[in-house]
Amino acid sequence: MADKEVMLLDIWISPFGMRVRIALAEKGVHYESKEEDLNNKSPLLLKMNPVHKKIPVLIHNGKPVCESLNIVQYIDEVWKDKSPLLPSHPYKRAHARFWADYVDKKIYSIGRLACTSTGEVQEGAKKELIECFKLLEAELGDKPYFGDETFGIVDIALIPFYCWFYAFEMFCNFSMAVECPKIVAWAKRCMEKESVSKTLVDQHKIYDFLMERRKEYGVE
Amino acid sequence: MADKEVMLLDIWISPFGMRVRIALAEKGVHYESKEEDLNNKSPLLLKMNPVHKKIPVLIHNGKPVCESLNIVQYIDEVWKDKSPLLPSHPYKRAHARFWADYVDKKIYSIGRLACTSTGEVQEGAKKELIECFKLLEAELGDKPYFGDETFGIVDIALIPFYCWFYAFEMFCNFSMAVECPKIVAWAKRCMEKESVSKTLVDQHKIYDFLMERRKEYGVE
Repeated sequence: MADKEVMLLDIWISPFGMRVRIALAEKGVHYESKEEDLNNKSPLLLKMNPVHKKIPVLIHNGKPVCESLNIVQYIDEVWKDKSPLLPSHPYKRAHARFWADYVDKKIYSIGRLACTSTGEVQEGAKKELIECFKLLEAELGDKPYFGDETFGIVDIALIPFYCWFYAFEMFCNFSMAVECPKIVAWAKRCMEKESVSKTLVDQHKIYDFLMERRKEYGVE
Repeated sequence: MADKEVMLLDIWISPFGMRVRIALAEKGVHYESKEEDLNNKSPLLLKMNPVHKKIPVLIHNGKPVCESLNIVQYIDEVWKDKSPLLPSHPYKRAHARFWADYVDKKIYSIGRLACTSTGEVQEGAKKELIECFKLLEAELGDKPYFGDETFGIVDIALIPFYCWFYAFEMFCNFSMAVECPKIVAWAKRCMEKESVSKTLVDQHKIYDFLMERRKEYGVE
């Protein structure tokens, strides 16, 4: 069976881990989850991802797959009979990979900076973050999902950051619903899916986590 | 026909453009190439890649595909009957995507920094660059190509940087052949392929290009 021995090295708060959890839930794959401690990485994590030493790592029949979007594509290729996460047409696939990569390169790094800085650095990050979401909103347009009628890899790449919306608003003083109403409506639509609602954590927990980081970095 | 109307927006010296040129050559695809000027980007480039505004852009039947590794995967999926660039097995595909992504995230940024800086910054970048190549050498092992018997996407991701080896050695004062003999042997093996040898530019031209950048940045 394809889902014989599936293990996920993960951290509950990680948006990258959430991507993999959502993809596995969409496919109905049963798996064992192992919670990692980034301050004390397990020998298994260091063995399975010696290059980046990061979660998530999917271990399938003893073999590791690393990097969240790479894992999502792997999951889509192995469990291909249910809930396709990438389109079948090459052009649409390339389009989806492009936007998933865009989310990957921008939202976490800029969003985290916006939430853990002050002054000009924060203003710059906030401005860039809003620009990124506006660009994503333009790409979404009036489609229900980025994958059009189908919830797919771009949706999976972005939706974990819905947990961050409250933190974005609180730390950066703006309204996601005012700046990007279609993105907020899309996020709520995604939350109607059990694979998403059961995976995402409470927005206040991300806020608390980032508040701790601010204290750690000595940010007023 | 699949290769009706293929155009590439490119810059001759770009390692990212070279990846696409090599992939197209491997597949035997005829295309029109348009040389861009980064100081004066064409309206076509801005229209076809409004998000990143970067080359390379592959325009196939009027529709753009952006980001070099995404383009290589697109090319592999469209022209699938000749010279497969990714393996067919999901695990091997994920493994190849992982290493292509590793090259993408590391070599250009670290290599360029190593060649256009001085002092401690340069020493740090040089050390990191050599570590990256040693890691890649360990991954290559005794295989003829990263794609094992087959020249594939990881080879395509990395081989354009063979043009940079002379610059690495001159600016950073080390020998690639001493540090990574298997990588140098692999690069020479790749150069036996017409798709590579006809695409790569002379190493001295990259050296001259980087020397100009050093002058521009005021680096002694």
